[in-house]
Amino acid sequence: MINYDAFLSTTGRHLHESQIRKMSTLGVRVPDLVSLAAGFPDPTSFPFRELREIASELLDGTDGTVLQYGATRGYKPLLEAIVEVLAGRHISSTPEELLVTTGSQQGLDVVARVMIDPGDVVLVELPTYTGAISVFINAQARLAGVKQDGDGINLEELDRVCQRERAAGRRVNLLYLVPNFQNPSGLLIGLDKRRQLLEWAERRNVLIVEDDPYGVLYFDDVASEAETRAIKADDDRGRVIYMSTFSKTLAPGFRMAWIAAPAALSARFELAKQSMDLSSGIFDQRVVNLAIRRGLLQQLAPHLRALYRTKRDALQRALREELGELLTWPNPRGGFFLWVELPEGYDGDAVLERAIEQNVIFVAGSAFYVDGTGQRHIRLSFSHPTEEKLREGVRRLAAAMKPALAPAT
Amino acid sequence: MINYDAFLSTTGRHLHESQIRKMSTLGVRVPDLVSLAAGFPDPTSFPFRELREIASELLDGTDGTVLQYGATRGYKPLLEAIVEVLAGRHISSTPEELLVTTGSQQGLDVVARVMIDPGDVVLVELPTYTGAISVFINAQARLAGVKQDGDGINLEELDRVCQRERAAGRRVNLLYLVPNFQNPSGLLIGLDKRRQLLEWAERRNVLIVEDDPYGVLYFDDVASEAETRAIKADDDRGRVIYMSTFSKTLAPGFRMAWIAAPAALSARFELAKQSMDLSSGIFDQRVVNLAIRRGLLQQLAPHLRALYRTKRDALQRALREELGELLTWPNPRGGFFLWVELPEGYDGDAVLERAIEQNVIFVAGSAFYVDGTGQRHIRLSFSHPTEEKLREGVRRLAAAMKPALAPAT
Repeated sequence: MINYDAFLSTTGRHLHESQIRKMSTLGVRVPDLVSLAAGFPDPTSFPFRELREIASELLDGTDGTVLQYGATRGYKPLLEAIVEVLAGRHISSTPEELLVTTGSQQGLDVVARVMIDPGDVVLVELPTYTGAISVFINAQARLAGVKQDGDGINLEELDRVCQRERAAGRRVNLLYLVPNFQNPSGLLIGLDKRRQLLEWAERRNVLIVEDDPYGVLYFDDVASEAETRAIKADDDRGRVIYMSTFSKTLAPGFRMAWIAAPAALSARFELAKQSMDLSSGIFDQRVVNLAIRRGLLQQLAPHLRALYRTKRDALQRALREELGELLTWPNPRGGFFLWVELPEGYDGDAVLERAIEQNVIFVAGSAFYVDGTGQRHIRLSFSHPTEEKLREGVRRLAAAMKPALAPAT
Repeated sequence: MINYDAFLSTTGRHLHESQIRKMSTLGVRVPDLVSLAAGFPDPTSFPFRELREIASELLDGTDGTVLQYGATRGYKPLLEAIVEVLAGRHISSTPEELLVTTGSQQGLDVVARVMIDPGDVVLVELPTYTGAISVFINAQARLAGVKQDGDGINLEELDRVCQRERAAGRRVNLLYLVPNFQNPSGLLIGLDKRRQLLEWAERRNVLIVEDDPYGVLYFDDVASEAETRAIKADDDRGRVIYMSTFSKTLAPGFRMAWIAAPAALSARFELAKQSMDLSSGIFDQRVVNLAIRRGLLQQLAPHLRALYRTKRDALQRALREELGELLTWPNPRGGFFLWVELPEGYDGDAVLERAIEQNVIFVAGSAFYVDGTGQRHIRLSFSHPTEEKLREGVRRLAAAMKPALAPAT
């Protein structure tokens, strides 16, 4: 037998496993499972009829480039369409600043590849998105967490952590943020704080990686479009690498996302991507391009906001009924997630173990913390299950939690 | 102005640019250009009618998972279909050994990520595929070239180079090979040599990365299916990481390829891919799955072999007529490329510069050599242009070369 471990790289030996992906695998194996784990969009929102028409037109055989190799940077008309999408978000850009990526996950990977050496520090929120944690760990970065207030990352702590790491002789170039309806906390960084973050980045010579998958999905009972204004929109100095995706607003199956960054960095990102997958799916790019140009994205947005708001309400209602005396959570102002605090004495990972026995899953809070904490939180996703499933999931969660009502001391 | 160079990683500062991709960019900008550069499949071979039917069925709205996130490993029925494809190539496998990748380029990148530390040596053929060179350089590997004979890589030299690198204290774990109709040389490794390579890998404790995009595309006037037998087919000991793709046999636009490797390695590859792009395109996987299951790949194969054989002949005829006194090349036995030797005193890069003035491009041989040689070769691709374009391209190449008929001495 060959000992394959001896053939692995440092990264290969220490690959980070996403807890969310692990949960998804479980979901495939257990038929009756209710998953409040993965942040999958609601499939009833996928515009099948329009996409079918588009696919049919594209495959009519008149244009061979639809299935051919394409430019690494992205399909030119799609890049131009993304410039328009960004303009709608008050971000001015040119195709030279853009790169189409195979999902935002690849966007993060491209940034890590081009900008992170082993031992470099990446500043992240506590908690933060697990997919980003995986990328940065696989790049052998050191992750330094910064606590959040009600309006997002704490600026004093941010500066303190940055200076502490630099004083220890480490390179600190990147701050990773999800300003809109953060995954997992649902927090929205306040507008004042966004401006202050830009000033801080300039003062400390740091670049901000702004990951914005959920900005479009604000709930208009408690949030407004104005509050989701991208940090990038006011980035006059070239401090922000902005990332967004069509996965939450059109469909994830196309794996279509993009980076908007200063042109000098974009050129590097393009070169890195060249050796990573040559280009993202050509046919997928053509489909998404037409979906944008025919107004499909714009038509879908208000519908999606209403849909997920309704599902958020359904999950909250069920939780209040079944577990209102045990759990607390802030009312999400957008996005896909409820960030739930467990009562004293409970541990998210332990609750998850019991929940799995009841055929319901979620993500334990610890998966989102880079400092070993988070045991008192769990993330419940309301985006994918039907309302009936949401209720059933909460009933099962209650069954899992109630036997432990009086925790051992 | 921000100095973005200060924010780059070691890899980011030294990213390798593919000469082939650079040429493709030129192709987009110059309308009348004839490109003998990129190895694009002939778009007339894309089965549009069938693919349109498949897309239309998949998008009928009855199955939301068609556009949803999916498993990192790959869509289960596609993995099972690939097991069958591999069985047709005399390779026995299980889904646990497979990983669907976003093109073979990502397959290479996954392998590099999981197995190469900076300074590790990768053994490669002289010449070898530029996409592999890019990946390995971006992984900060040291590339050690091994010369080829008429039946492929020279075994004595291979052993000598491997031992030399190890004697210098370097880790040598991987040998990268394109055994079938190598890109760029068109060479086919002999069957005896394939068996000897397996023995050698066992003796020296090396793993073979076998990249097989062209095996199906043998030309039956001068080659047989039996001669393309994968090294992996006889790999009883788990020495081979096999990679192949649907880009040359169905269409590149779906970016669909796969790795077949020992399960212990595949599990690592899956984890790495998780942080690289979560999964390859879901819709694309569904399309390719149905294309395989409906026999489309099998129907296409003989047609593709005949098509590319005809185009090979057209390019050779034109070359013999226009440049027969100057150029020599082995008759390709499969694949997409003619590997042309220039006469004494000519330099591929210099010829390319003059060719660009004549609106014809190809890839200079130096791009494929990791030892700084290759100036006496150029790679002409016959796969994409029409026969008329092939003739026109050769006329322009002749115009570019003839003024230099009597090189300076």
